[in-house]
Amino acid sequence: MTQECTTGPISSRRSPQEHVAQYVIGADIGGTRLRLALADGTGSILGRWACSTAGTQDANAVVRLMRKGVDALLADASLSCESLCAMAAGAPGITNADSGVVIATSYLMGWRDVPLRELLEAEFGVPASVDNDVNLAAIGEHRAGAAQGFSDFVFLAVGTGIGAGIVLNGRVHRGANWGAGEIGYMLVPGVSEAPVERSKPGALEGIVGGEGIKTHWQSRWSETLTTLPRDATATQIFDHAPGSNSLAQEVLELASRTLAYAIYNTSLILNAPLFVLGGSVGIHPALCDATRFVLDQRKARVQPELIRSALGADAQLTGAIFLALDTASRRLALTET
Amino acid sequence: MTQECTTGPISSRRSPQEHVAQYVIGADIGGTRLRLALADGTGSILGRWACSTAGTQDANAVVRLMRKGVDALLADASLSCESLCAMAAGAPGITNADSGVVIATSYLMGWRDVPLRELLEAEFGVPASVDNDVNLAAIGEHRAGAAQGFSDFVFLAVGTGIGAGIVLNGRVHRGANWGAGEIGYMLVPGVSEAPVERSKPGALEGIVGGEGIKTHWQSRWSETLTTLPRDATATQIFDHAPGSNSLAQEVLELASRTLAYAIYNTSLILNAPLFVLGGSVGIHPALCDATRFVLDQRKARVQPELIRSALGADAQLTGAIFLALDTASRRLALTET
Repeated sequence: MTQECTTGPISSRRSPQEHVAQYVIGADIGGTRLRLALADGTGSILGRWACSTAGTQDANAVVRLMRKGVDALLADASLSCESLCAMAAGAPGITNADSGVVIATSYLMGWRDVPLRELLEAEFGVPASVDNDVNLAAIGEHRAGAAQGFSDFVFLAVGTGIGAGIVLNGRVHRGANWGAGEIGYMLVPGVSEAPVERSKPGALEGIVGGEGIKTHWQSRWSETLTTLPRDATATQIFDHAPGSNSLAQEVLELASRTLAYAIYNTSLILNAPLFVLGGSVGIHPALCDATRFVLDQRKARVQPELIRSALGADAQLTGAIFLALDTASRRLALTET
Repeated sequence: MTQECTTGPISSRRSPQEHVAQYVIGADIGGTRLRLALADGTGSILGRWACSTAGTQDANAVVRLMRKGVDALLADASLSCESLCAMAAGAPGITNADSGVVIATSYLMGWRDVPLRELLEAEFGVPASVDNDVNLAAIGEHRAGAAQGFSDFVFLAVGTGIGAGIVLNGRVHRGANWGAGEIGYMLVPGVSEAPVERSKPGALEGIVGGEGIKTHWQSRWSETLTTLPRDATATQIFDHAPGSNSLAQEVLELASRTLAYAIYNTSLILNAPLFVLGGSVGIHPALCDATRFVLDQRKARVQPELIRSALGADAQLTGAIFLALDTASRRLALTET
């Protein structure tokens, strides 16, 4: 059911008028999964598409997967390629949002200086934007999620790794080298002080990230201590923590205390009034409740509010859609002047 | 030799033209010392004045001391009260820079919600501005010190306490509740995890601040370990550290490692390319060198440059002078429109 679209220079594809009320693609490129959404000019999602990226480290191969997904989405919505007016993609690593170059990702993708925007514009013939995936999740929560109306807040993505999307004065703070919010390496009491390789999980991730939680669980696991299996996931462990399962409770307590310390430190620096917890591990209500409990005990002068993501797994994709809509508007404005 | 100046409503004092090429006062209000400087319209310091504030907790008493100092400075420069066109003061605590209210200082001053700008404008009859002293030091380093030309940097004041003045996109980031940069409470490996009272020294200050360093020294001191006295200051200890004095070296190592962790964490969040070390303890070259050594070992993806303050003890006062000049310009612009 997919159709191949022809490509060409962006400027020659259509007149400015045709951009109005057209469609955009938002993409969330993960180390294990690629997710796409087709949205209309209001940001409403008309269709979704996803596939595995496990073992796909080549950026051109990812773009080919995106081509497949975009064609399928357009076909399902009975739209032509000319209906697309822009796209935006989130990449799992440090990204130059100006040039659209992904500077570095973790070992899962292993990208270094990948000109992703250029690749996307060449493939799809529409203006594209690229940003770090956690920054896009922050944009998603800001525009349509838990952080609407907040000019300063921090989105914390806790999954396999940990990253922060920082919004100050209504804009994402990306840092001088696009590396702001890389808090997975933060040093708080209880984490390993040993310097780690740049491509390896950071000190904080070693305790609060999904893999770190599983490692802690497995190091303490015995049949006499829990009814959960030795290969339980972070989510399964947290599901059992609030009850009487003492090992699950112990693992939750370490993760939440360590996460609370990271939030406390970030709050001391930024004095942002809101922290939004997201990501596959961070979205768990037990983690949010336990972390808030530790934060409240510290009685900081400036106590940030801690809430869960309103968009959940859709945060990145939602941010990508809004970025694509902004990209279309900017290009339209440039074309008209 | 001092002269008492009459006061009155700001607007009725003089015409806009008279502001040009006039003089400003910069003030640095510390928990133990009040320092004033008289500067001309280019920011050049024409005179300085200082007195002790030990035991002076009442804000009105501090303003009376300032009156004494301002009168002395004007008299020494053979200037009339009408020569002053603005003033600015740095306060040692969380300060609302919009309203000019000092929200809270440490136990030394014990101020809570002191309308300092209002008090100054009533006393001196010129437009006044008020900000946190570390923010003013950052402004000083930005305009005339070590951070000139940097749009993003962090000034770290390490004295009795520790605070950060954060400049992002060329502007001081003060936080949603004016509390940004209060990093003296930061939790890094090695500090106490026990929650502390808001008015008491923070976890980081307990190790890196001047008092924390002295406490560490005294807890380890014995005549057989060092030739320095038991009541040595942080500066004296650091002076001896680079040599063969092993106890001084041990104390320096703990302080510098802990400070490096705090800088590393702040850099992960902000990705600022420059950190400037200042304050009575922070200005010591041995601390800067040892801290840089620990930072370099971590091989962070984004390694900030760490340098010492160019203005030293004058950083706050210099920032206050620039803020006073900005205040005069803003008031002049408002009067002319």
